[in-house]
Amino acid sequence: MSTQGEANLPVRLKEEPATETGAPSKNALKKAAKEKEKAEKAAKRLAEEEAAKVKADANDTSKHLYGPLLTSSPRLTKNFCPSLKDLEGSSESEEVTVQARVYNARVQSAKLAFLVLREQEHTIQVVIAEGGQHGISRQMVKFCGGINTESYVRVTGQVKPPKEPVHSTTISNLELHVESLYVISSAEEQLPLQVKDCLKPPSTKEEGDQDATSTDTNDPNSSLKTRLDSKVLATRAPATNAIFQLQSEICAIFSAYMISHNFTMIQPSYLAGAATEGGSGVFEVAYFDRKAYLTQSPQFFKQMAIAGDLGPVYSIGPVFRAENSNTKRHLTEFTGLDFEMPIREHYHEVLSFGEDLMLHLLHQLATNTKCQYLTTIIRNAGYPDAGTFKLPSAAKEGDAPPKATRITFAEAKTLLKESGYDIGPDPHADIDTAQEKALGELVAAKYGTDFFTVDQYPLSLRPFYTHPSPSDPSLSNSYDFFMRGQEIMSGAQRIHELPMLREMMRSKGVDPDDPGFKDYEDAFRYGCPMHGGGGLGLNRILQFWLGLNNIREATLFPRDPVRLGP
Amino acid sequence: MSTQGEANLPVRLKEEPATETGAPSKNALKKAAKEKEKAEKAAKRLAEEEAAKVKADANDTSKHLYGPLLTSSPRLTKNFCPSLKDLEGSSESEEVTVQARVYNARVQSAKLAFLVLREQEHTIQVVIAEGGQHGISRQMVKFCGGINTESYVRVTGQVKPPKEPVHSTTISNLELHVESLYVISSAEEQLPLQVKDCLKPPSTKEEGDQDATSTDTNDPNSSLKTRLDSKVLATRAPATNAIFQLQSEICAIFSAYMISHNFTMIQPSYLAGAATEGGSGVFEVAYFDRKAYLTQSPQFFKQMAIAGDLGPVYSIGPVFRAENSNTKRHLTEFTGLDFEMPIREHYHEVLSFGEDLMLHLLHQLATNTKCQYLTTIIRNAGYPDAGTFKLPSAAKEGDAPPKATRITFAEAKTLLKESGYDIGPDPHADIDTAQEKALGELVAAKYGTDFFTVDQYPLSLRPFYTHPSPSDPSLSNSYDFFMRGQEIMSGAQRIHELPMLREMMRSKGVDPDDPGFKDYEDAFRYGCPMHGGGGLGLNRILQFWLGLNNIREATLFPRDPVRLGP
Repeated sequence: MSTQGEANLPVRLKEEPATETGAPSKNALKKAAKEKEKAEKAAKRLAEEEAAKVKADANDTSKHLYGPLLTSSPRLTKNFCPSLKDLEGSSESEEVTVQARVYNARVQSAKLAFLVLREQEHTIQVVIAEGGQHGISRQMVKFCGGINTESYVRVTGQVKPPKEPVHSTTISNLELHVESLYVISSAEEQLPLQVKDCLKPPSTKEEGDQDATSTDTNDPNSSLKTRLDSKVLATRAPATNAIFQLQSEICAIFSAYMISHNFTMIQPSYLAGAATEGGSGVFEVAYFDRKAYLTQSPQFFKQMAIAGDLGPVYSIGPVFRAENSNTKRHLTEFTGLDFEMPIREHYHEVLSFGEDLMLHLLHQLATNTKCQYLTTIIRNAGYPDAGTFKLPSAAKEGDAPPKATRITFAEAKTLLKESGYDIGPDPHADIDTAQEKALGELVAAKYGTDFFTVDQYPLSLRPFYTHPSPSDPSLSNSYDFFMRGQEIMSGAQRIHELPMLREMMRSKGVDPDDPGFKDYEDAFRYGCPMHGGGGLGLNRILQFWLGLNNIREATLFPRDPVRLGP
Repeated sequence: MSTQGEANLPVRLKEEPATETGAPSKNALKKAAKEKEKAEKAAKRLAEEEAAKVKADANDTSKHLYGPLLTSSPRLTKNFCPSLKDLEGSSESEEVTVQARVYNARVQSAKLAFLVLREQEHTIQVVIAEGGQHGISRQMVKFCGGINTESYVRVTGQVKPPKEPVHSTTISNLELHVESLYVISSAEEQLPLQVKDCLKPPSTKEEGDQDATSTDTNDPNSSLKTRLDSKVLATRAPATNAIFQLQSEICAIFSAYMISHNFTMIQPSYLAGAATEGGSGVFEVAYFDRKAYLTQSPQFFKQMAIAGDLGPVYSIGPVFRAENSNTKRHLTEFTGLDFEMPIREHYHEVLSFGEDLMLHLLHQLATNTKCQYLTTIIRNAGYPDAGTFKLPSAAKEGDAPPKATRITFAEAKTLLKESGYDIGPDPHADIDTAQEKALGELVAAKYGTDFFTVDQYPLSLRPFYTHPSPSDPSLSNSYDFFMRGQEIMSGAQRIHELPMLREMMRSKGVDPDDPGFKDYEDAFRYGCPMHGGGGLGLNRILQFWLGLNNIREATLFPRDPVRLGP
């Protein structure tokens, strides 16, 4: 076994330093031997304990049909159903085996118990009845009815239609009559959170900009904080589960689009030798005897790839922001879907590419079978805005769908002004978050779309590497993309000429002679195509597609100034 | 513009703290206005300077046909050729425009100059001749012949067959007769590295385990260190460029395979609240007023996703290792292609899935048109092992390709022993890197394959979360994958039951009550399917597929204890 595969440091932690010849010391060998012995003993004891449990009740006629599963000797079973929903294809009285969670367990009488099994959004009723072909014992009925909810079990049984449809399960026209049942992994009796309390959106009682801790006992729905603390349980609820499957779909659609447009996937580094993107927003890393910094975006790497003649490039990866903001739309780590491309003649090639990419993505989310199915699960769970996203449609059938709605920054401000918003006297002053939301409503009302783009931001509002606008040097060839009036992407043409870049750095108060910029500036010192690109926020796309209240609902393992786990 | 799109901190750095009402202070507004003014002035001046340059020579009859391109007023051109190689499809005497790099420029006489343009692996000859239809001046001939190599230019001209084939370019039956030529971005005259010196593999004069700095002046090929220092230039060489395009193909093939097998892509966090994977190998991050740690793998997150009922999952992302190793196969940051899946009945489901995935990937690398093309470029550049990877083929045409070659750890040691290697008396002692390489050769000789897997490693050699083997508790349900005798993946069945997990932790000297493990242990406290998975090293797959000497050749922006840039 080599050293750079899986993280295996807990083993290596105990290693003694090697001797000078490279061989481990005698002491280390002794220690390793001891450890090995310990581990083997532990494994053996566990196997024996398990076996003992099953043998415990000698009077039990069906003791071979249930109990904890011996993980050390898996039974090979026939007709393994890969998924609960596949049971619907089974013929009546066929013997099948499934693995799923216990959603509910109850003993009806000494002779009869019921389980509800759950797998993602699918549930089915399971019947354990005394007697039958295999001679199920009362002990077994009691055992099955007493299994802790959320335990993971393997059930073999016959599929039969119930006497009357089971309305409390998603599979209502079939039930499973148990022949054997093993607990693969038992959940503890007391859980910090019931999956049943996660079926609907998080309680809004705790809302506000802070990740509040108060919960209202009258609201049956668990709070977001509780769900985030017990993420493993919360993610089992169908809607939450569907949210993260939809996230995966977004990544797949994005990647496929980039590949079909001849983009090369690059792997940027996430460690930089200098905090060139700005000191206060950057996480510092102890890097051997010096300091490194987590990159705030793949920006510089994408541009170096372009200068390195890799052509159009994209990346998917974490973005780190050391911003002490505890709002509903900020995280210290999120996933960026980034792209950068050479420009042939005009900056709008970049903007149009981005718009077409987003329209394709949104169209897929709205129409492809799996995305529709997942969105429906979420909508049915009571997320009010899931499935309501407005997209422009073709004027008449057969027409090509319209292009994205694009307005300039100046037009955006005029729209706001006409609707009575105070945009101030300075045409280059930014619009704030509330005004962006209002703009989203105005555009939706005027153009019938929840997705639009804003072009030509004032140069003063953008990073130093942004290319000025050819028609007005106070503006820039830059854009933002919006979903429901919230920004999901920023992008621009980038400066590709070193003198202009250095001039812009100076004018923004950035020192172009900072050694941390050398590698970046070299990209332009050695010749660079005109280019531009942008970075989409994966979590925000998911959040605003579904209209989720908090970006943490669209993030599997969210990180913010307060939260570092799970 | 919102705050969590592009990294725009250099702008925000200059912001004053907001006043209590949330509005920026007067001082901040003043400063912002000043900055804006400065930036606008700078942009204006640059545009004027550029324009002035073009107008400089009033006697020049073709001054409108060449010079630096005015980035502020791009000319719209017809017949834009997206790529140099597309010129081969142009009809004779057609007017076309291309953008590419100047690979070579020379003035033949006052009336004639030649350029060679390059785009990735394609080159074409360009002729600039006095007179002609557009009245090309001698000044223009001189200007074009004097362009610095590596500058990026836009050329409009007519495609014509040369008098005799041009053997020094890849396109030998066509040349481009210039009508106009603009420099989009000029490279400096003195470059730290010539692309011509990167055409072949790096000089091996510097080899050894250290990233040595010595270079031999007799070897025309630049050293790896020089190439890494000027990565942007090195990546322009066709073979190096092809290596990173091939890397992108590996990611695409991997993703497509996972998607077609119903895996959900997850985004793990790369920040952990505790250094649970082992103190010495973990990078520490200053996280507001406390400490965080860069994850060493997505291991815990993948397992939590499984416990959260997301089903089979995969991820692509950085892996961080704070190991002070300066070898040819270690980095402090590399890209992991990870997967984890529930097990139905037997651990070999995981191992077989991984083997089939790798066989599919390797088969695609060997046979799909783009991968073959890229591998050929690399082989033709003199990388001796590119394209020589042995894969088992079907016995006769029409047969299914054979399954992966799988041996047990014990069998691997027997193979080594039989060939005279000293494997020592302890059957559970690890084999070292040299023995792994020898094993690769033995397996290749015996089974005709450079890819094989080793199953059933001793439990004592694996991380605490590795499941013991059912048949022998001194072994484990774990495996390594090898390409050319070098490890590219480790994987295993993971322990899914909390008591066993805690027992194993203790036996490995890890404290199960360390609060840093709480979230991870909760995954098993609340019930968890049997599961297993593995992590492939993207850079290693690329390295060993091509037989590259150093993993840094397979990494776009490598990081090691010494290197933090570019």
